[in-house]
Amino acid sequence: MNEEQVLKRIASGAKAARLSAAGVHLGIGDDAALFAPRAGRETILTCDWSLEGTHFLRDKHPADAVGWKSLARAVSDVAAMGGTPRCYLLSLALPASHTGWWLGEFLRGLRRASRAFRCELAGGDTTRRDEILINIMVAGEIAPGQALRRTGARAGDLIYVSGRLGEADRGWERLQKTRGRVRADDRLLRKHLYPEPRLALGEWLAKNGLATAAIDLSDGLSIDLMRLCAASSVGARVEVASLPMLRDVDREKAVKLALHGGDDYELLFAVAPRKAQHIPKRFRGLQLTQIGRILRGKKIEVRAENGSVYRLRPGGWDPFRK
Amino acid sequence: MNEEQVLKRIASGAKAARLSAAGVHLGIGDDAALFAPRAGRETILTCDWSLEGTHFLRDKHPADAVGWKSLARAVSDVAAMGGTPRCYLLSLALPASHTGWWLGEFLRGLRRASRAFRCELAGGDTTRRDEILINIMVAGEIAPGQALRRTGARAGDLIYVSGRLGEADRGWERLQKTRGRVRADDRLLRKHLYPEPRLALGEWLAKNGLATAAIDLSDGLSIDLMRLCAASSVGARVEVASLPMLRDVDREKAVKLALHGGDDYELLFAVAPRKAQHIPKRFRGLQLTQIGRILRGKKIEVRAENGSVYRLRPGGWDPFRK
Repeated sequence: MNEEQVLKRIASGAKAARLSAAGVHLGIGDDAALFAPRAGRETILTCDWSLEGTHFLRDKHPADAVGWKSLARAVSDVAAMGGTPRCYLLSLALPASHTGWWLGEFLRGLRRASRAFRCELAGGDTTRRDEILINIMVAGEIAPGQALRRTGARAGDLIYVSGRLGEADRGWERLQKTRGRVRADDRLLRKHLYPEPRLALGEWLAKNGLATAAIDLSDGLSIDLMRLCAASSVGARVEVASLPMLRDVDREKAVKLALHGGDDYELLFAVAPRKAQHIPKRFRGLQLTQIGRILRGKKIEVRAENGSVYRLRPGGWDPFRK
Repeated sequence: MNEEQVLKRIASGAKAARLSAAGVHLGIGDDAALFAPRAGRETILTCDWSLEGTHFLRDKHPADAVGWKSLARAVSDVAAMGGTPRCYLLSLALPASHTGWWLGEFLRGLRRASRAFRCELAGGDTTRRDEILINIMVAGEIAPGQALRRTGARAGDLIYVSGRLGEADRGWERLQKTRGRVRADDRLLRKHLYPEPRLALGEWLAKNGLATAAIDLSDGLSIDLMRLCAASSVGARVEVASLPMLRDVDREKAVKLALHGGDDYELLFAVAPRKAQHIPKRFRGLQLTQIGRILRGKKIEVRAENGSVYRLRPGGWDPFRK
């Protein structure tokens, strides 16, 4: 199979009507794509690696899940900005052995994600490589001034998270123990394999001006809260008793997974006290939990259930620290 | 060095004033970048791999040249559309051993290219990896309807190229024979290491509606002409006697390099006969040469200097065919 044939397989899912509705005036097949957001909107640009051995294992992760998650990871950044995804570029490096069945399954998962997130394939770059390398760039849009940045959190703000923390990491533990085909009905496995970017929540927070700052939880609460606080020049205290944790593991492990587990793609956001009344317990079925407060200073602390307070050290995913 | 420190080094060159002038309202340090083209312009989106072992060799290519060329490759796609580059996202995977001197040199070359092409760093993604992997996404802009597509070539159009063909491949041969530091004054080496996307030429062709189709020569004339012709549903004939070839090698080799040598990043474009009078021999010092004509049908032929005509087979860079 040569490059043109690989490109043809990748491009074969593109529908002119859907591309046009996504603001893509020129898609795959030229030197570049042409895109315009709806009138008066800014463009959101973000990209994410999905690399064999780093983000997934060739023989462990189903190819369709690699496709889904590669796009979901990048779209989650758009959700964290409160924006709407519109189109994406796919950079793909594959072994020649994987241009058949594996590519088909990968594209099936990718297209399913593309439809679910309403984010259309507009272009990309392919090459051959012994390892499977993926990079996805997503272009989204948002009204000027509405974007949820990391920088707006102020002392006194309430800290919220969506969903339950540590589920994806727990799912990854299960996957490592699984032999053969993955059970599609396992909730934790699905959270690890097919994460759902919190687009509706992000858009709602942005449109209604409810969050002072937001970030998506990709590397774990301890790292991502540190990033949000550093960007806002504030500290924080997290209450362990409030954390939405796993119930099927012992308490100590549940706390560890909630503080440091990566890949949940939930939203972490800060809300000024006077606006907290507008944050429901559930947003369209998705649990929202207040887990702590923004503090003056730079310290990020955790209050354990026994009342003791300790410094939260980043323990999630940092590829350069390992 | 941890990920935050690597990010800090990457971000340290960003200047708020330059970002703002490039339409970047939010740069590195948040979940995503915010970008808006100038009023009434469309956004051009394109991305390119630059992978160790595939596109460069860690111990052969100077790190600053890897930085320059990674951006130049993606910017060249914007030139081929006739657009203006504005900002880029850098996806970088590096061994921990390369976060010191190598990263510094890489960033120096990248920033030099960024200034030369007026294309500002707006964001990206970094991770650790045994091999050096780079993906660059460039966002550019163009007035609606002006983009030079691959699809508009018609039978009878004249085919032009800029510059001289085969120079970069010849430079690559030289680099392979070079031990130690690279001589900065070698023109062919420079063409291989520090290619110059033909931005001014592309913009001029687009603004004045002079080209019916255009593509940049990244994989070699034989492959890229085939792509342009396939997109336009036409054939072509190339005249060897007209090709702007190398002079310091024997004729047979010069022809081969001109037809199949990759990495020149010159523009290949088609011009309707009635507009050919507007194409000068030189555009701002850059040689423009008519090398053949667009034909009806699908055949791509070459007329040799002895008058014999043969089928042009793609012989350039196709990673999946090797």
